[in-house]
Amino acid sequence: MRPKIVLFGDSITEDSFGDGGWGASLADLLRRKADMVLRGYSGYNTRWALKVMERVFPAAAGDRGEYISAVTVFFGANDACLPERCSGFQHVPLLEYKENLRSIVSFLKNRWPRTVIILITPPPIDEEARLRYPYIENTMGLPERTNEAAGSYAKACVAVANECQISAIDLWSKMQQIPNWQTECLWDGLHLSRVGNKVVFEEVTKTLKEEGIGAEDLVVDLPLIENVDPKKPLRAFDEF
Amino acid sequence: MRPKIVLFGDSITEDSFGDGGWGASLADLLRRKADMVLRGYSGYNTRWALKVMERVFPAAAGDRGEYISAVTVFFGANDACLPERCSGFQHVPLLEYKENLRSIVSFLKNRWPRTVIILITPPPIDEEARLRYPYIENTMGLPERTNEAAGSYAKACVAVANECQISAIDLWSKMQQIPNWQTECLWDGLHLSRVGNKVVFEEVTKTLKEEGIGAEDLVVDLPLIENVDPKKPLRAFDEF
Repeated sequence: MRPKIVLFGDSITEDSFGDGGWGASLADLLRRKADMVLRGYSGYNTRWALKVMERVFPAAAGDRGEYISAVTVFFGANDACLPERCSGFQHVPLLEYKENLRSIVSFLKNRWPRTVIILITPPPIDEEARLRYPYIENTMGLPERTNEAAGSYAKACVAVANECQISAIDLWSKMQQIPNWQTECLWDGLHLSRVGNKVVFEEVTKTLKEEGIGAEDLVVDLPLIENVDPKKPLRAFDEF
Repeated sequence: MRPKIVLFGDSITEDSFGDGGWGASLADLLRRKADMVLRGYSGYNTRWALKVMERVFPAAAGDRGEYISAVTVFFGANDACLPERCSGFQHVPLLEYKENLRSIVSFLKNRWPRTVIILITPPPIDEEARLRYPYIENTMGLPERTNEAAGSYAKACVAVANECQISAIDLWSKMQQIPNWQTECLWDGLHLSRVGNKVVFEEVTKTLKEEGIGAEDLVVDLPLIENVDPKKPLRAFDEF
């Protein structure tokens, strides 16, 4: 049975099979080797994520021999909404965000001790674009998310990963190294452009490799055409 | 548990999570509703496919309550290689192709009686492009696949679907209705361009809908953000 990689997160995960999306790119890279399981929930923060863990990661999955080789945990963009602004109902205080991430990690570690867990920080925020692309009515004229707040959550996310001795991808810092990241990596000040998707894809690919489950480490499912002998093609399938 | 849709076929399935790919587009359309399971095997014909059915569709999957709502069966492009040309080792005679498709269908029907099975015919072939993009050494100067042969296999595929009373997508005919299909729908005379991928995506989407498992028919996994009450957000998660 092929190993699975579960992509757990908010809209940036839910959208990841769109055109040029990082989830689809991973599925394409790991074709014949691993199944991507898309578990993105638009708008969710870590508080809501914790409420649905049992449903998203049913205990039975491990029991029946499915092998979850990795889980990406990609929350924070909604937690970091400012409490007094128009998306305040999605806000989660910074300390609770950290505690929730710890709980998500320990839930997964308890369920599947050998599964690689990768925390991904929220991306940076282009506040100007957030005003131009409101998700709900915004009468205040102030962005519901700021780059500074996203940065605090990103830092907290990396801290939790270090504390739990698991990998983290500091997307907030990584993206801001790209010139004009505001428009290069994002399209509405929060969600990923094609370039932004490529950054996430490359970072996840690199991290999977560091964790020993890169494309070269995984076993190919069934004989590759180049290993089928044109003179005796059926020989390749003798054992199946 | 989310229903699964298994995409079973050759390279045109294996490639379907590339940029603009029909598999990724389905995963994106059915986000929060169904999981796409990619089971494409580049170069495979129906003879080899039959050899690996047990491995691709393990009996245990149904036993453990996984629900396979549909399977796309997309073979024929390799079966239709001409026997005396450079890819002759992939060729399967027309009558055996039909018999193999029948066996694949009855295997799936026996295993999961309620699963929707959709046969997809091979696409048309642009012979000129096939000479320009050889997959293996081609010293004869003749294309290893012809559009006429692909057409015979397509017709046979549709006939088997009718006989088995299941849906078929006649891609061979459908694509040739598009002006300049040779370069619009294909990039190397066989594999799909962005437009070609769109055609397959739209046809599969339409067929799923006709079978009662379209995007509107499937249940959304966990509350949508628009159904979370901003005043009492946690109420939406009370039952989980």
